[in-house]
Amino acid sequence: MEALEQKILSEGQVLPGNILKVGSFLNQQIDTPFMLELGKEIANRFKADGVTKILTIEASGIALSFAAAVYMGVPIVFAKKSESANVSGRVLTAPIHSYTHGNDYTAVLPADYLSANDRILLVDDFLATGEALNGLFALAKAAGAEVVGCAIAIEKGFQNGGDDLRKKGVRVESLAIIESMGSDSLTFRR
Amino acid sequence: MEALEQKILSEGQVLPGNILKVGSFLNQQIDTPFMLELGKEIANRFKADGVTKILTIEASGIALSFAAAVYMGVPIVFAKKSESANVSGRVLTAPIHSYTHGNDYTAVLPADYLSANDRILLVDDFLATGEALNGLFALAKAAGAEVVGCAIAIEKGFQNGGDDLRKKGVRVESLAIIESMGSDSLTFRR
Repeated sequence: MEALEQKILSEGQVLPGNILKVGSFLNQQIDTPFMLELGKEIANRFKADGVTKILTIEASGIALSFAAAVYMGVPIVFAKKSESANVSGRVLTAPIHSYTHGNDYTAVLPADYLSANDRILLVDDFLATGEALNGLFALAKAAGAEVVGCAIAIEKGFQNGGDDLRKKGVRVESLAIIESMGSDSLTFRR
Repeated sequence: MEALEQKILSEGQVLPGNILKVGSFLNQQIDTPFMLELGKEIANRFKADGVTKILTIEASGIALSFAAAVYMGVPIVFAKKSESANVSGRVLTAPIHSYTHGNDYTAVLPADYLSANDRILLVDDFLATGEALNGLFALAKAAGAEVVGCAIAIEKGFQNGGDDLRKKGVRVESLAIIESMGSDSLTFRR
């Protein structure tokens, strides 16, 4: 998506450790009209797939999910990140390793919020090694729901999480895929 | 707001410890069209106030903030909850005590995301003792920004955080105010 690539080039910052900082428009600060454009694009790409619910993980996946849901007319649910699975009520859990933060956590979701009848779209702002998405897949599977695909704002193509999923037959739609990234250069996959 | 009161009565659950669980539509699962209605109502109440930015705190304030921002056409920024203020770059921080979880944390926001020219609307899903809002006030003040008011989905009137702010002259608009709450009864302030 050309507009997202341009925004990354004009406002993104590459930090040491392969970190791309886009907090000024996509994460901690959210450019609302721009985020709605990303949501509209996601809705358009999955309009024929009968999605019944969007599943994401707190916190930075929530705004993009909501933006997509505005155009899809479906509810969103987000998994919480918990140090333990110590939550009341019947819950679904999945262990996730965070590459960025170098720790492990448990993704937790009340079992009531997904059902075997759901057709789930997984949404997240970033896709790198795919650990978070794999955790969301596990939650959907635990509920017996079908995952119709994944919608991502920015995929770091060089970290292979997206391609690993595609090789398994998963539909992964990333609005921008970064092929390579350095302190003074950034190229996109076309 | 009548529609929110009805939704609380039909889908909310009162749990021990004065906890009102509305995760099925307002928090962990989000009823997107309904959330947009709440956002539209907030935008309407603050349409004359020249709001330039919405400030909230992760994670459950993000969706409501985004819904309001859709109708106000402004960016949102959210403070992150950190055990420490150990974040790179120049940041604004404020200590917050969580009544619900019984712990203390630090609200952290990159200093670049608020300026002295901003007219800030604080948004959150819940207002009880007001600890989170007071932390957001402190962040706005640290940036020299003006807070034009607070917009809340559900205020627990009996926990006094909202009235304490109103006594100080702060404009607090809550879409539903719970006057009293028990396992088999729930009354709203009218």
